[in-house]
Amino acid sequence: MANDTANKTLKYWGWGYAEDGLSADQAKSLLNTISEGFGIEPSRDGAFPTMDAITLPTPRIEAPANLSKICTSDTHDRVVHSFGQSQPDSIRIYNGDFEHAVDLVAYPKTSADIAAIYDWAGNKNAAVIPFGGGSSVVGGVTSDVGCNFNGVISVDMTRMNKVLEVDPISRAARIQGGARGPELEAQLKPHGLTLRHFPQSFEHSTFGGWVATRSGGHFATLYTHIDDLVESTTTVTPVGNIVSRRLPGSGAGPSPDRFMMGTEGALGIITEGWARLQGRPTYKATAGFRFTDFFDAARAVRMVSQAGLFPANLRIVDGTELKVNGAGDGSFALMVVSFESADHPVDTWMARAEECCLDVGGVIDVDWRNNPEANLQGAVGAWRTAFIRMPYNREQLTPRGIISDTFETSTTWDVFESFYHAIKDATQAAIRDVTGHDGAVSCRFSHAYPDGPAPYFAFHAPGNPGGDGTVMLEQWQEIKTRCSDALIANGGTITHHHAVGRDHHKWYEQQRPALFGNILGDAKKRLDPKGILNPGVIVG
Amino acid sequence: MANDTANKTLKYWGWGYAEDGLSADQAKSLLNTISEGFGIEPSRDGAFPTMDAITLPTPRIEAPANLSKICTSDTHDRVVHSFGQSQPDSIRIYNGDFEHAVDLVAYPKTSADIAAIYDWAGNKNAAVIPFGGGSSVVGGVTSDVGCNFNGVISVDMTRMNKVLEVDPISRAARIQGGARGPELEAQLKPHGLTLRHFPQSFEHSTFGGWVATRSGGHFATLYTHIDDLVESTTTVTPVGNIVSRRLPGSGAGPSPDRFMMGTEGALGIITEGWARLQGRPTYKATAGFRFTDFFDAARAVRMVSQAGLFPANLRIVDGTELKVNGAGDGSFALMVVSFESADHPVDTWMARAEECCLDVGGVIDVDWRNNPEANLQGAVGAWRTAFIRMPYNREQLTPRGIISDTFETSTTWDVFESFYHAIKDATQAAIRDVTGHDGAVSCRFSHAYPDGPAPYFAFHAPGNPGGDGTVMLEQWQEIKTRCSDALIANGGTITHHHAVGRDHHKWYEQQRPALFGNILGDAKKRLDPKGILNPGVIVG
Repeated sequence: MANDTANKTLKYWGWGYAEDGLSADQAKSLLNTISEGFGIEPSRDGAFPTMDAITLPTPRIEAPANLSKICTSDTHDRVVHSFGQSQPDSIRIYNGDFEHAVDLVAYPKTSADIAAIYDWAGNKNAAVIPFGGGSSVVGGVTSDVGCNFNGVISVDMTRMNKVLEVDPISRAARIQGGARGPELEAQLKPHGLTLRHFPQSFEHSTFGGWVATRSGGHFATLYTHIDDLVESTTTVTPVGNIVSRRLPGSGAGPSPDRFMMGTEGALGIITEGWARLQGRPTYKATAGFRFTDFFDAARAVRMVSQAGLFPANLRIVDGTELKVNGAGDGSFALMVVSFESADHPVDTWMARAEECCLDVGGVIDVDWRNNPEANLQGAVGAWRTAFIRMPYNREQLTPRGIISDTFETSTTWDVFESFYHAIKDATQAAIRDVTGHDGAVSCRFSHAYPDGPAPYFAFHAPGNPGGDGTVMLEQWQEIKTRCSDALIANGGTITHHHAVGRDHHKWYEQQRPALFGNILGDAKKRLDPKGILNPGVIVG
Repeated sequence: MANDTANKTLKYWGWGYAEDGLSADQAKSLLNTISEGFGIEPSRDGAFPTMDAITLPTPRIEAPANLSKICTSDTHDRVVHSFGQSQPDSIRIYNGDFEHAVDLVAYPKTSADIAAIYDWAGNKNAAVIPFGGGSSVVGGVTSDVGCNFNGVISVDMTRMNKVLEVDPISRAARIQGGARGPELEAQLKPHGLTLRHFPQSFEHSTFGGWVATRSGGHFATLYTHIDDLVESTTTVTPVGNIVSRRLPGSGAGPSPDRFMMGTEGALGIITEGWARLQGRPTYKATAGFRFTDFFDAARAVRMVSQAGLFPANLRIVDGTELKVNGAGDGSFALMVVSFESADHPVDTWMARAEECCLDVGGVIDVDWRNNPEANLQGAVGAWRTAFIRMPYNREQLTPRGIISDTFETSTTWDVFESFYHAIKDATQAAIRDVTGHDGAVSCRFSHAYPDGPAPYFAFHAPGNPGGDGTVMLEQWQEIKTRCSDALIANGGTITHHHAVGRDHHKWYEQQRPALFGNILGDAKKRLDPKGILNPGVIVG
């Protein structure tokens, strides 16, 4: 029953499978870089509790006969399903805070299973938390739902992980909501097709989770969110199913798909959908450019974004972020540009993008010409290696009392520079006030649009020396609050692609138009009249 | 007070300004083509009623003092605002059927004016019909709202027609909802920027109308609907304003903009919005290809759509449609491909698109190489001329008893051929059953997506010989019903970009997920608790 793939066991204390993580050398290097570069030192050398040491509350609810075969109250299952991959969740696990652990984990295999879970949970007044890959970094699957429920059941969708149909003519596939990235790509591969939606969480997130949270993939322009790749959706709600038509485009009233996307399990579970696919790219090129001024790099992104070239990758990373990740010395910002195509050589596209970069002072880091390995070379390659490894860092940092987190947003180009300073300064000030030390606050662009970038901020800060994890959690919360206040005050979005979850809800309520909040509340009453679905998420 | 621009008076019996239309020769040529090509003959030589001959019902409501300055019950204003540009509206005007004429026309200048109209109309139980350019071809502004209201007021938005702000850095502008296409482009031009959203109705439709109806522009790929060009919206509803943030991209819950887009005035009036702009294109190329087989042309569209080239134009027109419009002899289908850019030469893009077309049997109609006038030459040029003139045809045909209409949809590539035959056959059978004659039923693609085309059907049919317009209206309704039934039965959308209006509502209710219909109904109760806004549209 355990949440395994290919006989691997999911880690309960951090990212990925139990057997995966940083090597001892990599962990040492990470700590050294943060220490030497920014004076951020470990305040302790703690460890996550072992499974043996974890005692969970007795489950408050027990699966009825008709659901017993797909439900478990196994301790490992309950622990893994009680948290996502956020900084506060990591601290809670470190602290052994399992007071709000889910009571049951269900692994439905069919929509009928889900409907039966809803019926039973509704009668029991148990909260239902949909669970895809469990990689939410915003408390989307965190099981502390308050005291209004008689229990919490996590609905793990990963048994519904099939690609049900492939339409090679239209290049589309019907994919079940519980299919994780590698699983769905493996099923598409024999057809010569690919979804090519690669969020950083790709390995541990699901198609349904992507749609429910409006996830951002590796396409830095054009198809930035899964939204753009969705042709139709099927959502199972407590009062019935919402099934939209397969339509390449439509102007018939407001889009039902666009309404369900981003509801984060609060209105139903997205059990399947038709997704638009790509041919497997045969032409690729990657180039890297260094800029001494981050804002020059930003100008290059703007020029390329507005040129109508639609690169697959178009990212910049500031000097601090390169330094934190051992990919630079802090003296330059890096821009990475990639084009890919299953149809045609991309040289003309890349040549024009390069002109834009050189025009505003970029210096070639790695040359793309006749260089299929460019993505592995120079600062570009070093950054790529660090990026892939990044999700494993936190399990090293939390036990050592080092707070690390990221948040992402978007803003328009006209105000970008002042926005950047406001957010960065607010973050640095919050870290100083809370910890008494400077933090390492950095920025990259995860996605870019003709009208503005999606800046992605990261910070590392030294948690309270010698303190326990409770104080660390409070410190994180204060820093998070002040960063989020700054995002909202400066006109940004509380999230560009990480989703709202429980952690962003307060600011989401400030951001969304109040009357639209009422509409969502009415929809919640309509689709989830007993209010059991992912309480506290999207609809407060 | 009349709805004029630059001292021109709007025609009440058809498209455009009173002074515009087909020349006598052009009208004769149109009738000859239909007669000689398809045996469709005029059954009468009637005329629309003159303004002198029109008697309207006495207005049932009178503007209160606070609104009297912005309201009128002038006959011309009332007639123009009681109908859109649909075939049934044209017949109703021909028939002199002004029983349901609007009682009042209001020309608000501010959001406060609109709020005052809502308050007053709510108290009077008067229906409020938002009116942009009045070019709805689906009954979106048609004033027959049933017998539950004490009056009808048309809210003409064209006094709110300013571009309020231009942000040249982000390439975006804040545009009032009542700005017609030419007005808003004229205001953007000094900034070197353009929205480049050119629906066929461009001259007589407004930015707010486009957003409310999810209009389709001239971009045949990528930015097909106005949806894609909208950064934020402001909607004035009877219970307050819904204002979204300017965000290039966001994943914070379901998009409030995407929910308001397509509500067609049933939930509020979109008074302004920020729109994403383009640089004015300096590089352009147009090519034309002839195909003996329409489905080969469709295959070429699919190849180009899936190649990631994103042409500005990518349309095919079948032999019948070319023949009806005097741009071909019926023996070939035409494909038009255009690329445009403000940034870079488009030769590489066009060369690859051309390869796709030639690969599936296309023959060059006009060559794009070193040919800036290609769009004016060959069948491409002939079609272009006919296309621009097309909206003026109906005022020639209705008085002569010739039924002419269009409808558009979308479907996926895998089923396109069978879909095409099913729709075309259903239309032809309906025309035969209803009129006893064959019609001219044709198809083009208005827009194209990687996963499917947006087929646009047109038909001409001989109305009842010697009959009056009442029978012609019934004939049209029966044909329309059977075409619409076929669209829904075959998995299409009832509209790709013409909107739902009153004419499509019955089929829209079949198409949209039932629970989503409930959500829209709840939103209507929330935002328009007295149910006065555009009754019968979107929310039944």
